[in-house]
Amino acid sequence: MITLNGDYKKLRGNFLFTEIAKRTNDFIAAHPDADVIKIGIGDVVRPLVPAVINALHKAVDDMGTYEGFHGYGPELGYSFLKDKILLKDYKERGIDIAYDELFVSCGTKCDTSAIQELFSKDTVIAVTDPVYPVYVATNVMAGRSGAFDDVLQGYNGIVYLPCTEDNNFIPELPKQKVDAIYLCYPNNPTGLALKRDELKVWVDYARKTGAIILYDNAYEVFITEDDVPHSIYEIDGAKEVAIEFRSFSKIAGFTGTRLSYSVVPKELKRIDENGDMVSLNAMWTQRQTMKYNGAPYIIQRGAEAIYTDEGRAQVMSEIGYYMENARIMREGLREAGFTVYGGVDAPYIWLKAPGGDSWAFFDRLLNEYHVVGAPGVGFGPSGEGFFRLSAFNSRENTLKAIDRIRKGIK
Amino acid sequence: MITLNGDYKKLRGNFLFTEIAKRTNDFIAAHPDADVIKIGIGDVVRPLVPAVINALHKAVDDMGTYEGFHGYGPELGYSFLKDKILLKDYKERGIDIAYDELFVSCGTKCDTSAIQELFSKDTVIAVTDPVYPVYVATNVMAGRSGAFDDVLQGYNGIVYLPCTEDNNFIPELPKQKVDAIYLCYPNNPTGLALKRDELKVWVDYARKTGAIILYDNAYEVFITEDDVPHSIYEIDGAKEVAIEFRSFSKIAGFTGTRLSYSVVPKELKRIDENGDMVSLNAMWTQRQTMKYNGAPYIIQRGAEAIYTDEGRAQVMSEIGYYMENARIMREGLREAGFTVYGGVDAPYIWLKAPGGDSWAFFDRLLNEYHVVGAPGVGFGPSGEGFFRLSAFNSRENTLKAIDRIRKGIK
Repeated sequence: MITLNGDYKKLRGNFLFTEIAKRTNDFIAAHPDADVIKIGIGDVVRPLVPAVINALHKAVDDMGTYEGFHGYGPELGYSFLKDKILLKDYKERGIDIAYDELFVSCGTKCDTSAIQELFSKDTVIAVTDPVYPVYVATNVMAGRSGAFDDVLQGYNGIVYLPCTEDNNFIPELPKQKVDAIYLCYPNNPTGLALKRDELKVWVDYARKTGAIILYDNAYEVFITEDDVPHSIYEIDGAKEVAIEFRSFSKIAGFTGTRLSYSVVPKELKRIDENGDMVSLNAMWTQRQTMKYNGAPYIIQRGAEAIYTDEGRAQVMSEIGYYMENARIMREGLREAGFTVYGGVDAPYIWLKAPGGDSWAFFDRLLNEYHVVGAPGVGFGPSGEGFFRLSAFNSRENTLKAIDRIRKGIK
Repeated sequence: MITLNGDYKKLRGNFLFTEIAKRTNDFIAAHPDADVIKIGIGDVVRPLVPAVINALHKAVDDMGTYEGFHGYGPELGYSFLKDKILLKDYKERGIDIAYDELFVSCGTKCDTSAIQELFSKDTVIAVTDPVYPVYVATNVMAGRSGAFDDVLQGYNGIVYLPCTEDNNFIPELPKQKVDAIYLCYPNNPTGLALKRDELKVWVDYARKTGAIILYDNAYEVFITEDDVPHSIYEIDGAKEVAIEFRSFSKIAGFTGTRLSYSVVPKELKRIDENGDMVSLNAMWTQRQTMKYNGAPYIIQRGAEAIYTDEGRAQVMSEIGYYMENARIMREGLREAGFTVYGGVDAPYIWLKAPGGDSWAFFDRLLNEYHVVGAPGVGFGPSGEGFFRLSAFNSRENTLKAIDRIRKGIK
């Protein structure tokens, strides 16, 4: 008789976005005529840019011919894409990443949850709080936590690093020993970035303690300020301590098209359970080769198109569109008397919820103003009292949503 | 200081297909003019059929418009595809599978290696021998084995079920307790199928012992014989013991396009490490929701096209083409005096290697006849002395390869 993994049952509640979708759908079912505006989930709404569409069509045509057909591809990504990533995202920013340090795959959600398979089960995980729920949930499922604590609103055994108004949403270094630290900057959900010297504090900490930083850099393209790093490898010594994750979801509107990459430097080595020094690059290569079969050829060709001058100009125009939404939300809500953070280097606004109860504010916004946001507490205990709004919507809907909130809620 | 997973280091040698590629590339580098024919890896070579190409183009067009754009999709698959799978692959064969028992994802390699996350670490894994190497390797990486045994040519702690000429390549029931059994039928690599009554023996065994069957049904479309089941759920009681995996790789030429699905019935429940009865369907839903973000919209639309009459006729014509290759190989090699198995319900030929050494035969075939096959021993200890040939090639290359082998090797 097989025995099942007992850790799954520790998971508390629905995935945040599942719960948001449920409440929203219930409301729409009860009010079919309501004009509901969704700025909760961080999902793009605008079409793929023409350069990507053309590249996708061309790749589909390839697949319909003998000469152009592609069967099993390289598990770690095609060179036509990897070479361009290495050049444009790293080399031209003064960072040398080797070809076999780069791994193309089908999403940062997959990558950030799979990476922990390289760690021993007793690895102590630290996350900023609030945080993208997947980092926590997937470690809970792998047995790296105790039970959920209803008072703390978090899992025992996971180290939460509060990001609050008091510390300007910059986490303090852990007081206890931690082994792996998830950092997402520019940050989801607060919409704030770390400056170069602020990120250096973390790299130095990891170098000193032997911890590993899992750096989710999915929002790099939104950076506008000069002193915000575009890669963690801009920081001296980061290659010895950090894995970087990037995604095409936001830069190229690929949330439903699915493509991402990770960088695992060869300098990154640690002791394994047998006491041997091993390379995380070698382990990740084994993992991705054995458990993954590569991203679709067609999709990789689509992603390649954003590295042309034409493609880059088109996607940056889209990014500009969304960031103008962020500006409208940020300034509009501020003018209306709300306390608002973020939205300068990231497509998210972190709004202080009047009344201090995230889900109560969610329900009020949905029921009275037909606007769907994301309750801050869904991202972690320190998110209580806050609310995330996303810039990923049409201009019209963004203006309408802000107008409704300004008029209705103080 | 973080500690790394010590189990990865138990992995012995290269992934079979990596080693084949390495030896082949070395040979080609040394003999650039040689006309090398690759019938080693089970990878399709013919283009996607017109119905799929048209559907992919249409989906790409969707993604270029506001109205047709798709962002994050349902993690478990779009209903336009799931409904057709449920109807055509199950309902029309008399099998009822519920909507939420079906999970669309990006490959059977991913699915069969991820499913073990639902099991406790001490789960005893059984595999047929020879076997697709990924089942074994991914369990080794998760700590479900001891060290590799050079004499046995297998991992301690993994239960190998020999499939040999003596038992007509039908594995005998395990003599020791096992918890999870990987069965792939029609089989890779032997190219043989289990009849309905032969599969029933396994379902009955699992019902009696509480083991779970992981049924890799990637080659279903090649079945030609009436008494070979098209789904394990044709067998009474299988829903209580079996998870089924299927792939679009072979039926629709999707090896580089990437799409698959799994079925986890709600009847499938077992005790977890806390002693509680839990549903594997609920756990797999949690796993796929938390660690995966759905397959690309474009690719799911492409797969949908094979469920139209036109698409079905086109893909079945491709299957017929490949199976004629299988017939040519089977009969040609048999006439030439080789002992040959498989190739009737599956696209693989399992050839007895003259001399009895799989890798020696590989090298001889490559060096003397410029034909690349897959050494049987790469699939497990009982594969020694055998050799896998794949029907996935052009007619011309298939004829040429068989002609060279017939003329040269006795």
